[in-house]
Amino acid sequence: MTDLAPVLSHLDGDRSGALARLFELLRFRSISTDPAFDGECKAAAEWLAKDLAGIGFDARVASTQGHPMVVAHDLSSDGPHLLFYGHYDVQPVDPLGLWERDPFDPVIVDRANGTQFISARGAADDKGQLMTFVEACRALRAVNGRLPCKITILLEGEEESGGASLPPFLDAHRDELTSDIALVCDTGMWNASTPAITTMLRGNLAEQVTIHAASRDLHSGMYGGAAANPIHVLTRILADLHDDSGRITIPGFYNGVSEISNALKAQWADLGFKHEDFLGEVGLGQPAGETNYSALEQVWSRPTAEVNGIWGGYIGAGFKTVIPAEAHAKVSFRLVGDQDTNAIRAAFREFITDRLPADCRAEFVARSGGKATVMPLENPAFEKARQALSDEWGTEAAFIGCGGSIPVVGQFITQLGMHSLLIGFGLDDDCIHSPNEKYEMASFTKGARSWARVLAALAG
Amino acid sequence: MTDLAPVLSHLDGDRSGALARLFELLRFRSISTDPAFDGECKAAAEWLAKDLAGIGFDARVASTQGHPMVVAHDLSSDGPHLLFYGHYDVQPVDPLGLWERDPFDPVIVDRANGTQFISARGAADDKGQLMTFVEACRALRAVNGRLPCKITILLEGEEESGGASLPPFLDAHRDELTSDIALVCDTGMWNASTPAITTMLRGNLAEQVTIHAASRDLHSGMYGGAAANPIHVLTRILADLHDDSGRITIPGFYNGVSEISNALKAQWADLGFKHEDFLGEVGLGQPAGETNYSALEQVWSRPTAEVNGIWGGYIGAGFKTVIPAEAHAKVSFRLVGDQDTNAIRAAFREFITDRLPADCRAEFVARSGGKATVMPLENPAFEKARQALSDEWGTEAAFIGCGGSIPVVGQFITQLGMHSLLIGFGLDDDCIHSPNEKYEMASFTKGARSWARVLAALAG
Repeated sequence: MTDLAPVLSHLDGDRSGALARLFELLRFRSISTDPAFDGECKAAAEWLAKDLAGIGFDARVASTQGHPMVVAHDLSSDGPHLLFYGHYDVQPVDPLGLWERDPFDPVIVDRANGTQFISARGAADDKGQLMTFVEACRALRAVNGRLPCKITILLEGEEESGGASLPPFLDAHRDELTSDIALVCDTGMWNASTPAITTMLRGNLAEQVTIHAASRDLHSGMYGGAAANPIHVLTRILADLHDDSGRITIPGFYNGVSEISNALKAQWADLGFKHEDFLGEVGLGQPAGETNYSALEQVWSRPTAEVNGIWGGYIGAGFKTVIPAEAHAKVSFRLVGDQDTNAIRAAFREFITDRLPADCRAEFVARSGGKATVMPLENPAFEKARQALSDEWGTEAAFIGCGGSIPVVGQFITQLGMHSLLIGFGLDDDCIHSPNEKYEMASFTKGARSWARVLAALAG
Repeated sequence: MTDLAPVLSHLDGDRSGALARLFELLRFRSISTDPAFDGECKAAAEWLAKDLAGIGFDARVASTQGHPMVVAHDLSSDGPHLLFYGHYDVQPVDPLGLWERDPFDPVIVDRANGTQFISARGAADDKGQLMTFVEACRALRAVNGRLPCKITILLEGEEESGGASLPPFLDAHRDELTSDIALVCDTGMWNASTPAITTMLRGNLAEQVTIHAASRDLHSGMYGGAAANPIHVLTRILADLHDDSGRITIPGFYNGVSEISNALKAQWADLGFKHEDFLGEVGLGQPAGETNYSALEQVWSRPTAEVNGIWGGYIGAGFKTVIPAEAHAKVSFRLVGDQDTNAIRAAFREFITDRLPADCRAEFVARSGGKATVMPLENPAFEKARQALSDEWGTEAAFIGCGGSIPVVGQFITQLGMHSLLIGFGLDDDCIHSPNEKYEMASFTKGARSWARVLAALAG
């Protein structure tokens, strides 16, 4: 068993050193999407490899077709092997005029209530988060001379710009990267006082559909009534996608969707989530999805079908009495559980073509798809990590869902056969991807302490 | 009784004179929508007034806020008073490169089968048509020294550019313009051998509707399932507009819609209309409207609701998983019989708002509206004119419908309390409003002979 008290004390005592190191990293303008900053990305990667080597890792900068990876190993422990994933690249800073401070000159800002935050691009996404893990490793090595687990660190430089280099890199370095479980720090807390492990990520699937009718646009005076109107056809079919209870009517759509466990349901109920707050912030009040599920279930554990775009006919100013030759929609699905992307894509296309009246045909364009991720909570690592987080924060940590997708988690499953512990200390108001990005001082300091506790717990 | 034979002979003998006069009129570039041609419009009006004065009319050019009107009277007859309406302005000629001949240098083109046509902008719409009437008057005066009926001629110069000056002009000159019936020559034959009187014009009404939901666009990962999607709301409501039999479901929508008489139904059945041809020309095959009505009824005598445009969310290239804050549609109605525009507009808005779920609201923008026109076939003038047309063409003339609207017909009803005899000799392939506009030589020569017969018949 790792004696945690001196490690936590070391972290507390070295706070100014940790902040100084974070600030060095934050000063790199590692905007991965803009080639003007290629050199800054490389410099950030080199700084990280050097810092990790200084702790005792066998660290290197590995080149790719794009920005380099940082790979570091410390496999000297007898404990389980963990792969920590983070990314050193950041989003662009436009519009710069909306920033209250220089995005690449990090500062600590004091609030009237005594709390503090770190202001900088990348403070939360993801440099501040990844450094919580690095500082935990540094303290564990400094105090105990060794880490409680075998640790491999993989830091990417293209997370904000498509991540094209990651899948081939995982394939090419499967042996050195495959571990017992991955630790991914690109997520958030439930709220400022409640830490969380994200255990469910919805998958997604998208299709563009075009309904064709007449060979050209028609005048609605001359043809109206007798000619098929593809907008009518499209709206009738799309309206059919949901029944009156909000359930999706595509045959077989719910294959692979299971109800969440009563334990998880009870835990979510304890989170104090209020749909009035969640929806009220965007001018809404009533959950609009399946009537038998709470708003939290609707966005975390239930699949959806959403029309993200629709267009057809005359959409300019004024009026033109046209019956168009075609009408279009972009439709996407959020998937959960074991829903099969190929089966749902086929069922959706059949759903459309089955409903086409005479003289109409449908054309489809496939868009991205990926299965949902549901973490195996029966793996004891989840409960151990949850207990460690609860100990640090004095509040029981929550297993939460996420309506969106985090591609690397799926890639770890499909390419390396490993699940992820999604632990992060970001907050909803951190303004990631926006001007005035910040990271709470408590997220940084208690985040590092949390990782020390988690690593100790996973070793046991 | 007018002795027609010498009048018709006179028309036949003066064919080259009539063509020379028409060509003079066609050479004016009277494009009313382009201020560069204001002078040409005025010159065309002055040429017409002078020509009518030469026949014996009391003719003048009457100024308006826009292009001038030509007003001419010959009230010396004891017969009924008829108001002839036509327009001397023409559509623009772009794209000029698609014309096979100079649009303002009219020529006669011979076909291999011996028929001829007149090629020029305005040949059919409406200079050629209005001159058929003027030539008939000229021949009647030349042969008999007088017209069989009191005739007032009103020639407009803004029919192709909004016609804003006409309603106030009708109000200001109500006394001199109000007649027993109007003769409007801006329509066509049923086909090249079958003359026609258009007796039904559908009205129209349009609304733009916007469905508002959240206060901003939302990410479909984070909110999908719980947040109202205004595209879904819009498609569900629009899909509800028609039932499975194609009938419009807005309460009260069919108030004022009556079935056409069996006599008219039988006559339409005799026209030899084939929906396979009508729809086949535009790549369709099946009438898409109310299942209990023929395609001809669907476009002539039945009301419609058509979505002319729809848009919402992300409609660019690629994909964006957005739940938009709003979605829009442009909806228009074709009206028949005695359908009330105000009542239908109100019922449509109520239909929408009744179906709005929580958190959504609808916003409406009203667009143009006008009642349908159904001519009183019990007025003997219709049967007299039909007989006269049948005599000239050797084929029984048809009472036909028109799916579109001709605003002046409604204005004559509402402002002057008079119905119209819609008689014209255009054909569907005359390319009005398009490059290579033409008018059949037979339409011009037999059209003039037809008007002589119609005027003689209406005098009796």
